[in-house]
Amino acid sequence: MSWLPSLKTATPEEGFDLAIKLSRMAVKKTQPDDEVRDRLRPDYANDADSLTMASQVVATNFQTVARANKYWTDD
Amino acid sequence: MSWLPSLKTATPEEGFDLAIKLSRMAVKKTQPDDEVRDRLRPDYANDADSLTMASQVVATNFQTVARANKYWTDD
Amino acid sequence: MSWLPSLKTATPEEGFDLAIKLSRMAVKKTQPDDEVRDRLRPDYANDADSLTMASQVVATNFQTVARANKYWTDD
Amino acid sequence: MSWLPSLKTATPEEGFDLAIKLSRMAVKKTQPDDEVRDRLRPDYANDADSLTMASQVVATNFQTVARANKYWTDD
Amino acid sequence: MSWLPSLKTATPEEGFDLAIKLSRMAVKKTQPDDEVRDRLRPDYANDADSLTMASQVVATNFQTVARANKYWTDD
Amino acid sequence: MSWLPSLKTATPEEGFDLAIKLSRMAVKKTQPDDEVRDRLRPDYANDADSLTMASQVVATNFQTVARANKYWTDD
Repeated sequence: MSWLPSLKTATPEEGFDLAIKLSRMAVKKTQPDDEVRDRLRPDYANDADSLTMASQVVATNFQTVARANKYWTDD
Repeated sequence: MSWLPSLKTATPEEGFDLAIKLSRMAVKKTQPDDEVRDRLRPDYANDADSLTMASQVVATNFQTVARANKYWTDD
Repeated sequence: MSWLPSLKTATPEEGFDLAIKLSRMAVKKTQPDDEVRDRLRPDYANDADSLTMASQVVATNFQTVARANKYWTDD
Repeated sequence: MSWLPSLKTATPEEGFDLAIKLSRMAVKKTQPDDEVRDRLRPDYANDADSLTMASQVVATNFQTVARANKYWTDD
Repeated sequence: MSWLPSLKTATPEEGFDLAIKLSRMAVKKTQPDDEVRDRLRPDYANDADSLTMASQVVATNFQTVARANKYWTDD
Repeated sequence: MSWLPSLKTATPEEGFDLAIKLSRMAVKKTQPDDEVRDRLRPDYANDADSLTMASQVVATNFQTVARANKYWTDD
């Protein structure tokens, strides 16, 4: 099954989780080795700027997901 | 209850606060350990570029929230 | 009174000033201590890349404000 | 045949792959030498911030591709 | 007279120049001292990454200006 | 003749090339000296993060060009 069947989510919170998934999948597609990615985790998870950079990627992907879901409003 | 029930806010100021919340939640979802995040605070809170990077994330999330609220205008 | 009652401005120039205000407010909300922010000013105000990063935040916020004001055109 | 005949994809997953292709093609157009790009791979594939920066580019291109495909919804 | 009376330009090229002007004005509003900005020029004008960062700001502002001018098409 | 007569291109591939041209023109407008830009090329063309930053600028400009061309679809 596709890891990304749709951009539609029931709620904004699910949409935010999808944005995180999109952000992490791009890393995985760039560095497919799970061990390497695990080894790198302490580098970004314990660095303020690295965490901010990760938040920036989520913000960009959330912008896409929110738009795809018409901001979860019936407008 | 969901931490993100909706992107709708009554005012632009509340929308800006939501953008900050979205920015910080992405960091929390990446580094769930409250102690680690607290320990990192001095690193970014006392560094000009780190603060600018944080402001960039808020700007991207505010763009999403503002659009979701039709810029708080009745247009 | 709210520091952000509306995204509407009479002119593009006022819109640009609002984008700067949004950019600085995100920094203030992240580092509320005026003294710390003042102490950090020389770091970014005398560094080319720091100034470019600040300009990037303003550009993102101006994008939001311009869209909120329909680009100050009657289209 | 063109490497980019269309932005249309059948599914979001194919759209994400196209966003990755767009991101890598811009690098290739900037540094056409395959050997150089291969030589540089360990630098970014084993560095947390580099991988996050790559994810940011994919997020921006995915935003474009998703919009081009109307978010793969029939809205 | 306002330095930014309008976002409208006659041509895409003028729009690009306006995007550059917006990018530089944000720097000027952050660092009003002409002498300091002149002193900093060699730092960014002779550094590849600094020039790329500047180009990123122009790209974001050009996105705004192009949208304001409906991409200079009669669509 | 203008270096940017229009944002319209016949194909997505031409649109991508225009996005690269926009990205490079912003660098040229910031650093007009061809010799300096040539001298800087090894710095970014042989550095992974620099190439990723360049790809980010192209992604932002491609977003603008794709929108200007309605994503090369007749929708």
